Amino acid sequence: MDQDVVEQIGTIVGENNYSTRIADRYTYGFDSSIHHVTPDIVVQPRSAEQVSNLVKLANRLKIPIVPRGAGTGLCGGAVPLKGGMVIDLTRMNAIKEVRVEDLYCVCEAGVVYDSLQKALAPFKFTFPPTPGSAEACTVGGMVATNASGMRAIKYGGTRDYVLGLEVVLPTGEIINVGTRTLKNASGYQLERLFVGSEGTLGIITQVTLRIVPKPKKMAMIVAGFDTLEKAGKCVSALIAKPLLPSAVELMDSTCIRAVNKAINAGLPDVAALCMIEVDGDPKVVADELAEVVKVAESIGAVGLQQSDDAGQMARWTNSRKSVMSALSRYGAGLVSVSLADDMAVPISKIPEAVVEFSRIADRYGVIVGTYGHAADGNLHTKMLLNPESPESWRNGEKAVRDIFDTCIRLGGTVTGEHGVGISKAPYFQKERATALGAMAAIKKALDPNNIMNPGKMQEWEGCIIQHLRYPCADQKN
Amino acid sequence: MDQDVVEQIGTIVGENNYSTRIADRYTYGFDSSIHHVTPDIVVQPRSAEQVSNLVKLANRLKIPIVPRGAGTGLCGGAVPLKGGMVIDLTRMNAIKEVRVEDLYCVCEAGVVYDSLQKALAPFKFTFPPTPGSAEACTVGGMVATNASGMRAIKYGGTRDYVLGLEVVLPTGEIINVGTRTLKNASGYQLERLFVGSEGTLGIITQVTLRIVPKPKKMAMIVAGFDTLEKAGKCVSALIAKPLLPSAVELMDSTCIRAVNKAINAGLPDVAALCMIEVDGDPKVVADELAEVVKVAESIGAVGLQQSDDAGQMARWTNSRKSVMSALSRYGAGLVSVSLADDMAVPISKIPEAVVEFSRIADRYGVIVGTYGHAADGNLHTKMLLNPESPESWRNGEKAVRDIFDTCIRLGGTVTGEHGVGISKAPYFQKERATALGAMAAIKKALDPNNIMNPGKMQEWEGCIIQHLRYPCADQKN
Repeated sequence: MDQDVVEQIGTIVGENNYSTRIADRYTYGFDSSIHHVTPDIVVQPRSAEQVSNLVKLANRLKIPIVPRGAGTGLCGGAVPLKGGMVIDLTRMNAIKEVRVEDLYCVCEAGVVYDSLQKALAPFKFTFPPTPGSAEACTVGGMVATNASGMRAIKYGGTRDYVLGLEVVLPTGEIINVGTRTLKNASGYQLERLFVGSEGTLGIITQVTLRIVPKPKKMAMIVAGFDTLEKAGKCVSALIAKPLLPSAVELMDSTCIRAVNKAINAGLPDVAALCMIEVDGDPKVVADELAEVVKVAESIGAVGLQQSDDAGQMARWTNSRKSVMSALSRYGAGLVSVSLADDMAVPISKIPEAVVEFSRIADRYGVIVGTYGHAADGNLHTKMLLNPESPESWRNGEKAVRDIFDTCIRLGGTVTGEHGVGISKAPYFQKERATALGAMAAIKKALDPNNIMNPGKMQEWEGCIIQHLRYPCADQKN
Repeated sequence: MDQDVVEQIGTIVGENNYSTRIADRYTYGFDSSIHHVTPDIVVQPRSAEQVSNLVKLANRLKIPIVPRGAGTGLCGGAVPLKGGMVIDLTRMNAIKEVRVEDLYCVCEAGVVYDSLQKALAPFKFTFPPTPGSAEACTVGGMVATNASGMRAIKYGGTRDYVLGLEVVLPTGEIINVGTRTLKNASGYQLERLFVGSEGTLGIITQVTLRIVPKPKKMAMIVAGFDTLEKAGKCVSALIAKPLLPSAVELMDSTCIRAVNKAINAGLPDVAALCMIEVDGDPKVVADELAEVVKVAESIGAVGLQQSDDAGQMARWTNSRKSVMSALSRYGAGLVSVSLADDMAVPISKIPEAVVEFSRIADRYGVIVGTYGHAADGNLHTKMLLNPESPESWRNGEKAVRDIFDTCIRLGGTVTGEHGVGISKAPYFQKERATALGAMAAIKKALDPNNIMNPGKMQEWEGCIIQHLRYPCADQKN
């Protein structure tokens, strides 16, 4: 990057708020995916005005921009595929308003999810979506990817809580979309269009979120099953009852063994388990818990445990949250990769989906850990591959293709909550065949110079095997 | 319209599915607003393919198209401002799937809201948004306007339930957006962009909606107050508690007297009242009801009545729903008009808003009935004007301007659930100042020939006094 441009950027954000050092740039070439590309500069603005000036400069000079929260994304959405400027929004982390009487709060994009929950806790209010990366991820990143997590079955995803946004458009113009009211029919709901746009349409700098009173009570059940299919059937049976638990988390034996080994989680050594959470008024929670037990037993649940003790529930939740990192310590020279990491299918298709995933793993001799937010049809898989072995990666790719094909065939989507990024681009193209033209038209209308997160969503072919962080497996980077 | 074009249209939809007779065309020049413009032809397609062929023809010949459900909109959204073709979607009324085990249903756009609820009832499921025009309005129209109604405080609006759509783009291309899964992060969420787009971006032909189990029990309280402000304070006090009733409907004395006179509703003759509905598990409903009573009494509620009898609750709900028609029979040569009909403010601003509305009515000597879904900050007002008197209309216009200015000043929106249409265009422009450019760019990208519902959202100046159905008050039509 020209020294002249660097100086202009320095003038906008001030000293200590940008870096062109290789160590910093290299670091900001990662998110939590398998991809890596080093950007030309990293900038940490403090205000929407600074972001606006950065974008104006970039738009004039056609410098690619990648906005970024905590970098917890698993598909490369925050990896700067074309280099250019990474805009790290984590220094814009003020919680500006908590208006429980109006059921909303206003945060800068860089506010960490857990910090927001801490600010809401004294009012006994909550922002219901519960991402796995709660300790680190930012609300801006959640909006940009439509993140949701384990409680979507009962409470919906991030999109259902976005009332308004402040956005810096690719021209540098700062706009306000949406409202601070619960209802809004005033023109196009751009606030919902920017949800899930992964930094390709503009930079979200401020978020107005609907908040709700926290449930008074919570309780959990852990139910083991002797087949993965039965665990899937338990989920469908609960919904069909109809029961609306606040969460049902599923783990297969690969995941159970991994967390038992890595953090001594003490989970039952079964083929699969469901962690079922119910919440609400104390009087109702007890009844629902009893109904959940009945349903689980009717499917053949074994080793049922239940608790409403905060410590025990936190341990269970933590063991589930540890799956991803635990699989990384599986051993035997294997790394856990996020490729087919985030499929969603109609809930009743869960049993068929999980059985098919196992078959696919066997077909290609790949170890696949399956877990996820099964109650809302959202399944995560991690593939354990050998980064030194091109054959291992080729088998992984074939398994990924078959897993995504299965999801599309079952009426599902290739990404429920992580986004498209780099990894899912070719499969996204397949799933969204009829809608791509309209998406591209909107992208072009708002970002004619294609400066915002370029290369994502438009360039589909072969993305998955490019820009891998494991050089031996990367064919072209 | 050229006979040749009419014949091409006839070839697409077949005999008996279109009309150029003046009586039919004149009828389709109305919706439920104060506006009227006669279209050139009315068409009633039976399938998305027919809609697609109609749109292709119109796009080639640059014929304006206005898609239309039941015509229950109150702001002129379905009035064909530029003439052309009205596409009535009510013959596309098949409920294609009810998948309670997957928490979704699929309907053609012309399905009437109440018919959908009847189809869900045997499963004890519901589509929670509850519009006032439930008996007539179509789900396609609800999506096109982001309609919601009285239960949004607890259950959200239509936008929160749209999982997927089939849309005919202005080019005639049929696209599928969204999914049949509860979660979706697969590219731009176009399904949420089409929500509230009022037929300006394409024609919604099919809707996939999230559905939820019906609450097991419901109960209502009617609380009277000696000032309108106290009724507003009751709403804020409930939310601040925090209590989340499923609905709080507010009515001022003008509305109460109108329904008592028109349908002998038997409501208490007070300055204002709140109808508060709670729902959920029977065990919890009783407790919440008691808490609601305590809050209402602390604000000075009088003549409290409560009931969980279905008949009594239906009578109360019906009296609230009858406000609009009852005000039309107010007498003295006055008609009830929808102008400032659908403001929403942050909930805590309700008391200030309703007091200010009264002041504005007094200022211009206009009778204003105020009612609405106060729990979610959404207030409706009806103005009683003399269609023979230009002065009465001028005063009405001034009152409208001041009411909208009040809402914007209080951090609200000029339309919570009815949409912009014709009536609100100039105020929408004021409220959405920073977002208009982006909205216009998206409109142009998807509809370059501006055939879809032209004149709405783009041409703002003076719309409110144009195209009125009362010729004496219409300055320019």
